[in-house]
Formats: sequence, structure tokens, C-alpha cells
Amino acid sequence: MSANVLDAEALQAVVDRAPFHRWLDVRVDQVDESGVGLSVPWRDEIGEAAAAHGGILAALVDLVADQAIAAKLGQGLPTIDLRTDYHGAARAGRLRGRGVVVRMGRSVVTADAWIYDEGGALVASGRGTYFNRQGGGGS
Amino acid sequence: MSANVLDAEALQAVVDRAPFHRWLDVRVDQVDESGVGLSVPWRDEIGEAAAAHGGILAALVDLVADQAIAAKLGQGLPTIDLRTDYHGAARAGRLRGRGVVVRMGRSVVTADAWIYDEGGALVASGRGTYFNRQGGGGS
Amino acid sequence: MSANVLDAEALQAVVDRAPFHRWLDVRVDQVDESGVGLSVPWRDEIGEAAAAHGGILAALVDLVADQAIAAKLGQGLPTIDLRTDYHGAARAGRLRGRGVVVRMGRSVVTADAWIYDEGGALVASGRGTYFNRQGGGGS
Amino acid sequence: MSANVLDAEALQAVVDRAPFHRWLDVRVDQVDESGVGLSVPWRDEIGEAAAAHGGILAALVDLVADQAIAAKLGQGLPTIDLRTDYHGAARAGRLRGRGVVVRMGRSVVTADAWIYDEGGALVASGRGTYFNRQGGGGS
Repeated sequence: MSANVLDAEALQAVVDRAPFHRWLDVRVDQVDESGVGLSVPWRDEIGEAAAAHGGILAALVDLVADQAIAAKLGQGLPTIDLRTDYHGAARAGRLRGRGVVVRMGRSVVTADAWIYDEGGALVASGRGTYFNRQGGGGS
Repeated sequence: MSANVLDAEALQAVVDRAPFHRWLDVRVDQVDESGVGLSVPWRDEIGEAAAAHGGILAALVDLVADQAIAAKLGQGLPTIDLRTDYHGAARAGRLRGRGVVVRMGRSVVTADAWIYDEGGALVASGRGTYFNRQGGGGS
Repeated sequence: MSANVLDAEALQAVVDRAPFHRWLDVRVDQVDESGVGLSVPWRDEIGEAAAAHGGILAALVDLVADQAIAAKLGQGLPTIDLRTDYHGAARAGRLRGRGVVVRMGRSVVTADAWIYDEGGALVASGRGTYFNRQGGGGS
Repeated sequence: MSANVLDAEALQAVVDRAPFHRWLDVRVDQVDESGVGLSVPWRDEIGEAAAAHGGILAALVDLVADQAIAAKLGQGLPTIDLRTDYHGAARAGRLRGRGVVVRMGRSVVTADAWIYDEGGALVASGRGTYFNRQGGGGS
């Protein structure tokens, strides 16, 4: 796997480019060689209804997985497809995500993400595949 | 397949319960026996960055698929898992979604959704599986 | 969507190249501009246990979706990822599959497949994404 | 997570019930509290053509993920849906799979699997969701 090219501060700047990320108030908590940690504060739109909940959590899985790639390539990649599994209701509070690159291919990059609630319960997890336009970091 | 129990107006009321749906300003455009049509206006959070884009589109796939179920059961169901494919960049403008129930099982309901931009291009499509707690409408 | 370049006979020859397809005894039943129809006879390995069943059905979804692409491009493409939903037990008898290209992208092709048992019940359905190495037929 | 109820020998007996597993000649190599290891010998049907390859690997992901559940519940569960990512060509030789239960829910169990070729390269990975009819081991 390729080494990181962005630290937490630089990754935060990449994250903040997107208005949706600013609306979610995404914070980069950790960047290390094995993956990234991001979190978002609770807000009404995340929590009152199951349908909304699922949508926001899918958005978080995509965001967290893509930022794990950005840490290694300098920027996120376009998502080919995204899969999210829902494991249980989230407790209101800060949501924390962990993202890891599974395979850095020359054409397709695969990354996993896990989303935890403030109590540490796994509320969603999933995987995205991303199109490696530049072919960077691939093997 | 079971018949609808909600018309467009009643489905709009179900949709509007979720703060995230109100933030997206989701409008129910059509409800017929074969599926539902929903749309959302463009907004900055949808469009400036690829990562944000993917998240919002996944949320729309979940929302549209789940409301196709709600038209038939009277309410949406909890999402087991969600898969979204991204087919191309959306042109700024109203996004229109079409949702269809694929199979109304006693335990698991499967529904498909397609999201089009204002020019009619397919920008995303996908499928959700939903847990049929009540076992309603199943076969 | 691009026009077909293979008819049923030519597609059968493509299908028969793979030993696994010969073992399954896959028959091309129909090729038209909107998609392809393939079928396989029942055999013990398909049917006795749920786990085996799921695996063979996933293999059929991949095969059928990929041959819908082959009809349009002259050959199948490498699978990026595959998703299969299981809708119910299959009745022993010939399994019939229908495959349709959803989007012929320059880099990624998306295709859907549905698998029916001899009684016409939908037993599985799913989607594959395929890597369009040649960029043929894309838009 | 619940403790195992089957050891390797007992799991082998569960695996061997399915004719498809006997055709694949699946061997249970390892069972521990964190997951299971299974392997299959190479055979012509696995390897000559990309399409066949994808199908067999999807079947292995399903099989391996489901047997990780069987080690904990005493038997496999019906697959709700299955997702497989393809990471690269397999080198001819024994294929080794590792399966892990991600979440043992009362209604839905989620399990991951990774398939490696004889050289240790990750050739496929994926996830299945399974219907927990008995509600055993759930949380």
C-alpha cells in the first residue's frame, strides 16, 4: 500500500472543499498509515426518522472511505459504487468514522468504512469502489 | 405485488416527517401502482464536490426506494443495506427519482431506484433491502 | 445504447469458452437489442443446500449480466464487483436468466440480471459493474 | 459476539452436506473465535475465463462468510444478499478464504470474506447478509 501524502490538517482542507461536508461539520480526527478517523456532530437531520438516518449514514460511509484514499493520493476519487450495511439505531451524539483502503488498484480503488455512535456501537459499515483516473499509487 | 395504500398527498406527509427530507425539500410528484416519483431541487450541498455528490445521491436512492415501499405499506421500513451506482455527473437542476418495489417479501423487501438530472440523464441508480418488521404485504 | 454485435449463435460460442459455463451447460436462448436470455438445466450442485444455491445463483447473475455486455461489445468484460439478492427458494427445473445493460460507460459498464425458476418465480436478481478496458461502446 | 459451537471437524461435516461444496472440494482449515479459514484446490472451471472466475469467487465469498456464521450458530443461514469485489487475477493454485462475522444481529447477520491465491494475493473480497431465522446469538 502506498504511503500517505496528506496529514490531518491537509486532509481537513480537502474535506472542507465540499459544501455538504461543511454542512455536516466533518472533522478529521486522525490520519495514520493504516487509515483515517473522521467525526461529525449530531444534528436533527441525522436522527429523527429511519429513512433520513440511512441516507446520512451512507453519505458518511462514502465520505470516510473516500478520505482514506485522499490521505494516500492527495485527493478523493469519483465513486463507482457504494454499499452500506445498517447494524442498529445510533444513539444521539457524535458519530465517528474509520476509513481504510482495502486495495489501491491502478484502475479501481476499494475502501472500507465503519461508523460508530458515541457509545462505541457499530451503527453502519460499508465499502466503496472508486475510479483511479490518474492510476496513482496503484499495483 | 400488493396495492398502494397511500396516495401522493399521504406519501408527502410520510416523507415530511424526516428533518433530512425537509432539508432536501423532497416533493412527491407521482404515485402509481408500479412505483413512485420524487424530486428535489438543486442546492449547493449536492453539487460542488464529487464526494458530497455521491453521499447525497446515495441518500436519494435510499429515500426513493423506501418511499416506493411506503406507498404500498403505509410507511417506510428500516434499511438493511443499500447499494448505489454512479453513472455520471449531474447537471445542476432538479433531480428526479423513480422508485419501484422489486419484491415484497414477508421478511425482506427489495426496491430499486433511479435518479435522473434535469436533462433526463441517469446519474445514479441502486437498490435497497428493507426489513419487513410487520410482515405486511409479503409473499 | 450501442447495438448488438453478436447474435445468439456467436454469443453461445463466447459463453462456451469458459469451462465453468460448460459445466453449467449454459444455453443462449435469446439475444435482442434490449438484452439477453440464458438458461441452465437443474443439477444436484445447484439445489440441495442453501449455501451452494446462493453461490451458483451469484455465478449466474454475473454470467448473465456479463453476456448482455458481450452481445454489445463482442466479449465479456472483467467484473469489478457483483451484487446478488436472493428472493426465494428455486423449484428444481431449468433456471432462466435475463440480462440487460443499464449503462455502457467508457470506463465502467453496469448490467442487471434476473434469475427465474421453471415456474417463473424470481429467485435471484442483481447487478454487476464491469471494467471497460477498451472503452468500446461508451458514452 | 457469541462463542463458537462447532470445531473444524464439525464444520467440515456441515460444509460437506452441499453437493456444490463437495464438487469444489472445500476443506475447513481453521476455526477460531475470530473467524474461519477454508480452502479449495484449483480446477479448470475456476480459471480459464474471467466470467467463470468471477462466479466461482462469488460462490466462495458466500460460502466462506456463511461458514463463519455456522461456526457460531451450528449451521449456515439463508443469504439475503451478497456483494463481491474482484481485486485481480488469481494465480493457479489452492485458493484460501478467511471469513469473519461482522455483526450477529437478531434478524440479520453480516459477515465478511477474503479470498487469497496461493501466492497470498487478495483476489476477491466481499460481504453477505444472512437472515437469522432462529434469532440465535443475536444482539
